[in-house]
Amino acid sequence: MAKELISKHAVIGRNVQIGDFVRIHDNVKIGDNSVIGDFCVIGHPAGGDFAGRPLDIGANAVIRSHTVVYEGSTFGENLRVGHSSLIREGVKAGLNLQIGSFNDLEGDVEIGNWVRFHSNVHIGRGAIIGDLVWIFPYVVLTNDPIPPSGLKYGVTLGEGSVVCTSAVVLPGTTIGRGAFVAAMARPHGNVPAGALVVGNQGKIAGTIRKLKHKETGKQHPWMSHFSDYYPPEAQMKIEELHKLVLLDVELLETLLAGENRE
Amino acid sequence: MAKELISKHAVIGRNVQIGDFVRIHDNVKIGDNSVIGDFCVIGHPAGGDFAGRPLDIGANAVIRSHTVVYEGSTFGENLRVGHSSLIREGVKAGLNLQIGSFNDLEGDVEIGNWVRFHSNVHIGRGAIIGDLVWIFPYVVLTNDPIPPSGLKYGVTLGEGSVVCTSAVVLPGTTIGRGAFVAAMARPHGNVPAGALVVGNQGKIAGTIRKLKHKETGKQHPWMSHFSDYYPPEAQMKIEELHKLVLLDVELLETLLAGENRE
Amino acid sequence: MAKELISKHAVIGRNVQIGDFVRIHDNVKIGDNSVIGDFCVIGHPAGGDFAGRPLDIGANAVIRSHTVVYEGSTFGENLRVGHSSLIREGVKAGLNLQIGSFNDLEGDVEIGNWVRFHSNVHIGRGAIIGDLVWIFPYVVLTNDPIPPSGLKYGVTLGEGSVVCTSAVVLPGTTIGRGAFVAAMARPHGNVPAGALVVGNQGKIAGTIRKLKHKETGKQHPWMSHFSDYYPPEAQMKIEELHKLVLLDVELLETLLAGENRE
Repeated sequence: MAKELISKHAVIGRNVQIGDFVRIHDNVKIGDNSVIGDFCVIGHPAGGDFAGRPLDIGANAVIRSHTVVYEGSTFGENLRVGHSSLIREGVKAGLNLQIGSFNDLEGDVEIGNWVRFHSNVHIGRGAIIGDLVWIFPYVVLTNDPIPPSGLKYGVTLGEGSVVCTSAVVLPGTTIGRGAFVAAMARPHGNVPAGALVVGNQGKIAGTIRKLKHKETGKQHPWMSHFSDYYPPEAQMKIEELHKLVLLDVELLETLLAGENRE
Repeated sequence: MAKELISKHAVIGRNVQIGDFVRIHDNVKIGDNSVIGDFCVIGHPAGGDFAGRPLDIGANAVIRSHTVVYEGSTFGENLRVGHSSLIREGVKAGLNLQIGSFNDLEGDVEIGNWVRFHSNVHIGRGAIIGDLVWIFPYVVLTNDPIPPSGLKYGVTLGEGSVVCTSAVVLPGTTIGRGAFVAAMARPHGNVPAGALVVGNQGKIAGTIRKLKHKETGKQHPWMSHFSDYYPPEAQMKIEELHKLVLLDVELLETLLAGENRE
Repeated sequence: MAKELISKHAVIGRNVQIGDFVRIHDNVKIGDNSVIGDFCVIGHPAGGDFAGRPLDIGANAVIRSHTVVYEGSTFGENLRVGHSSLIREGVKAGLNLQIGSFNDLEGDVEIGNWVRFHSNVHIGRGAIIGDLVWIFPYVVLTNDPIPPSGLKYGVTLGEGSVVCTSAVVLPGTTIGRGAFVAAMARPHGNVPAGALVVGNQGKIAGTIRKLKHKETGKQHPWMSHFSDYYPPEAQMKIEELHKLVLLDVELLETLLAGENRE
């Protein structure tokens, strides 16, 4: 109850709007034109190696009410965070990261550019998440291969991959570029680029070419029909990624057809 | 930090108790005899079509601490909301809605009377939820048929249907009146009235007549043994619904028996 | 808005640090050297039988920001609670309980010593949780055998058992000592001590002897390699439990082998 609510040591950019009842700790840097909602804690003290390390939030961030962000992380410009999320120490995130409400980022994670987490996403420590990845509600990226063990085998999500609602990604799983994990699937091991993963066994059910919407004709790779939601600077990356995923799918179809012939 | 915490433009009824550190925005109307817990944000600004639209909360509401309700929604009398829930813009809800803690209503949803959500329910945009529906923890009503696509195919839950823990209702699913979705089921398509849905494939495993409790003899439809938890004005509706669901079950049993004969 | 934030009737120990914007109600007792984060509500009024009953939190507790603890519960020393958790009335917990963030303890639950809940654990009413149990994210301990029914068949978790991510434990289930519930499993009935449970059907897939990590050789029972994370006073209990679980596994292997021969 003693310290001032907004630390004098925090570096707050120009035109930053801060709500009521917001605690901003030391070691915090917030870029210009950012918005912090009511009841947030920014720069919460971390333990271990991250104690006293800076929290650097790029310009144009919007962080909604009741969210807690620990010290010891870096976020590129245009960060968006929903309500009541928790982001712990040791996150290195690129540009335009969007995090929904009720997310739980346990820290020690690398995140590329233009990544989107819907509500209630749980990111275990040690995860590496590529550019343009999408994660949907109640997905868990785990990391302990024999819980409780103290071992940490983080999950890797390739560029442009999609993990759907309530999927549990088992420890040490690598999801290839542009792959699609269906709702309630439980992937493990190495999931090839362009693959479709389904069910409790995390079975490879084919390629993402199977994902076609009857009424509209929209299909995967999603970059073929969804790029308009991204900022202009993402467009070239999206076009390039689209081509690569199409090649991945081609290759995987050939491989799977070969397996079926044998 | 400039604006008053409780807007002068908000219309607060008689005998309303408001906790400490509560933000009430403009455009908010709260009915008589309501209770708002500490650290709530009521009437949070919405974007898009709902910006500046009123939030109308009926009389006798109880909203627990740390909850955020956006502008642009309407709730009938006797609303109950737990702690740390998020309710976004565009909700049209009837009487006696009960929402637990950690719920995430994404907005743009129609909800009937005497509906109950347990903790941690996620309601995607576009859902239509009938009277007397029950939803249990970690259920997700999805809406994107080919994520990420920007398409929105909301879920419809018929009157008196029940969706159990950790079920994921796939986009565009219609759950018939009085149907029962088992824990961890993943329903899709058109689920007939009175059906029992189970498993990752969302299989129709028969009718709700299978749901009988050995020790007590209690069985489905649940309206046969649970109406005492509802207010008197719901009783007639419950009796009527009970009869309709019994007919639904009768019809579905005949249909399923026919399929089995073929 | 009238009452003082920290009740004069609360009994606060020596060297207790209380954050800003913290509400502490009457009937609360907090042990020495505890820490309460910003925006917490401690001793929230309960309804029914627990109204006005004391909340007793042992010494050296740490409760993180935005957490709500109801009156009518008892916690032993060294309690740890993460951010934005909800703990309702009627919890009786032993020493060194660790509760992560976004947990939802619905109340009316008994918890042993050295128990650990990760983030987003949901504990339904009526649960009984033994010493040294581990529960991982998005696990639900349910209690209603025919929802909605008003019946309450709580779950029992034996000493040293482990329930992994997104498992749903069905009402009235008893998990034996040292058993292991895999991610996304749905156990029911009586799970024998030392058993491994998998899948949507909650199948007994053998004993925990199957759980061996190839690279490191670490294996179950976990007490064989994980005791260093516990305080010294837990060591003797852990050693004793380890021996008992090894005997359980021996017995179960014999039983399962006999079933396979028949």
